Amino acid sequence: MFVNEKTYRTIWMEDGVVKMINQPLLPHQFEIIAYPTCAGTCEAIRSMVVRGAGAIGAAAGYAMAQAVREVQSSPDPLQALKLFTTMIMQTRPTAHNLFYAVDRVNTALTGIQDSARWVAVADHAAKQIADEDVEDGQAIGKIGAALITDHMRILTHCNAGWLAFVDWGSALAPIYTAKREGKNLFVWVDETRPRLQGARLTSWELMNEGVPHAIIADNAAGYFMQRGEVDMVIVGADKVARNGDTANKIGTFEKALLANYFHIPFYVAIPPSTVDMSCADGSEIIIEERDQDEVLTIYGKTQDGSFTSVQISHDGAMARNPAFDITPANLITGFITPKGIIPPEQLKYTY
Amino acid sequence: MFVNEKTYRTIWMEDGVVKMINQPLLPHQFEIIAYPTCAGTCEAIRSMVVRGAGAIGAAAGYAMAQAVREVQSSPDPLQALKLFTTMIMQTRPTAHNLFYAVDRVNTALTGIQDSARWVAVADHAAKQIADEDVEDGQAIGKIGAALITDHMRILTHCNAGWLAFVDWGSALAPIYTAKREGKNLFVWVDETRPRLQGARLTSWELMNEGVPHAIIADNAAGYFMQRGEVDMVIVGADKVARNGDTANKIGTFEKALLANYFHIPFYVAIPPSTVDMSCADGSEIIIEERDQDEVLTIYGKTQDGSFTSVQISHDGAMARNPAFDITPANLITGFITPKGIIPPEQLKYTY
Repeated sequence: MFVNEKTYRTIWMEDGVVKMINQPLLPHQFEIIAYPTCAGTCEAIRSMVVRGAGAIGAAAGYAMAQAVREVQSSPDPLQALKLFTTMIMQTRPTAHNLFYAVDRVNTALTGIQDSARWVAVADHAAKQIADEDVEDGQAIGKIGAALITDHMRILTHCNAGWLAFVDWGSALAPIYTAKREGKNLFVWVDETRPRLQGARLTSWELMNEGVPHAIIADNAAGYFMQRGEVDMVIVGADKVARNGDTANKIGTFEKALLANYFHIPFYVAIPPSTVDMSCADGSEIIIEERDQDEVLTIYGKTQDGSFTSVQISHDGAMARNPAFDITPANLITGFITPKGIIPPEQLKYTY
Repeated sequence: MFVNEKTYRTIWMEDGVVKMINQPLLPHQFEIIAYPTCAGTCEAIRSMVVRGAGAIGAAAGYAMAQAVREVQSSPDPLQALKLFTTMIMQTRPTAHNLFYAVDRVNTALTGIQDSARWVAVADHAAKQIADEDVEDGQAIGKIGAALITDHMRILTHCNAGWLAFVDWGSALAPIYTAKREGKNLFVWVDETRPRLQGARLTSWELMNEGVPHAIIADNAAGYFMQRGEVDMVIVGADKVARNGDTANKIGTFEKALLANYFHIPFYVAIPPSTVDMSCADGSEIIIEERDQDEVLTIYGKTQDGSFTSVQISHDGAMARNPAFDITPANLITGFITPKGIIPPEQLKYTY
């Protein structure tokens, strides 16, 4: 998508060098960072230079493509590749797309004895993983845009934009598509405490795509719904269970309940990989509780242009910090997927 | 209440000098600041060194007591007092308690020709205003504490503690009373974006009173309710209409709706002055929209102990910032008042 009027993907590979947007610097600085080795790309995944399910999957695919280059000089390339595979899988042990990407490249290599041929095969598989992510985003965008009529005001939570994928994104893809179709629309951006992905990333994406929007405190979503100023909610998801129960960024459940109360359509936009058919319902999803410092300190830019964290409460303050919540399927109007708009109860027949 | 194991009121007067806690420095520094003149006390109200309905009322009463001292040497004390009265009333033109306090002192002075006698009369009236605020808080505390059973987990939003009044507070008074009665309890503190009064003030108050608690992102309230970890919600109010519709800090409505969904009792604790019988319902309450910088920048303490604001979003980001919302009466279990627990529909017969 657009950054300063030029188009970018979040991650790509050129001649074996993986390049990606340095996401922790956003929205204050835009920088492309290059990793010539598999170990470097692994470190980028681990330290969240790249984040978001789709983008992590692409990064893992490219890391595999780098690995097959690096094992060429090894006395036992297959054994060496196994070690690299393990290294890549340990970077973010909870990222489903990471395992999918590693498996997919390994499967493509299976049975090819001549390791010199691996490079072209792995490159092709890695590019396919990234391209399919982009195609999923485009399909979600096209299908979701059909729900958006002129002058709609759409609320979104967290960042399920192109920065979380390779391009287009999930929740924001319908918004970008509708905008490019010439529709007038407005986006309410939940700032999304504690990590402020809405204020930091979603607002930056929308600004670059020229979509009118306003950041609001998460507390204000209900107020604007109550006043009839929200026509639709679109969010992404971290994981969707077979029955449609949806794990997403903390606060999603609150917005879903509010939308339900005001009869505002609430959509979850997802690529196929987000649905976990092995998970029966939300009760099986374990919610990660993260460090309390994410609540108690906030990072940003000072007036003199430097960057710092500030402590918002008193010394020794205590916080609890669940990272996700579960939105029950009955609060979800439908899933916007590359296969169409799917009601929660149909999900298990679709995937 | 307790600060570092000593008891304080938020504001008091000694020999014509008004003393108050410098609230903008909290929770990072605790400082008592003294205002020897009426103009100084007015500036403290205007610049929010003192904030909260009850505390502002007390400040205005003391400012009047200072004014009557300062007019003693005037050729026309009555005329001079009128000028001071206007000055006090212009400090926070939307603060109902401010006008109430000014009127009350003026009424006490009515008909007293000898201006030398004004000082004692005004001092007495100003002290009464402050003392009645404390008595209201104690009564709310006692009545509200009866709702609290051992091991309850109570959620509160914003700061309706003693810092917003002269002592005890409204929403937190039942918690302090229950704690002093020996009950075990736990408080979930919504951080309350954008101005973070929960993280900054409520958590600091609870820490000083030794009440176990945790700060949470406003987004996490629904999560803990969903898990059955919230037994009751108590909030304060800025203004309550005749029918029970309640204006309070932005986000209160979201928490009320969540509580309703999970059948969690939702109480609004208020002194009598918060009920505006001239206001029929919430639709008549105008919601102030404040500067977008309250959303886009956050103030706090840096690692080196200095204080700064940080910008959380990109340059030129846009935000909307409604300060309050309206919680409809049907979502409110009851009002905790000095006269008892009052269901919303009974409010108009009580006040």
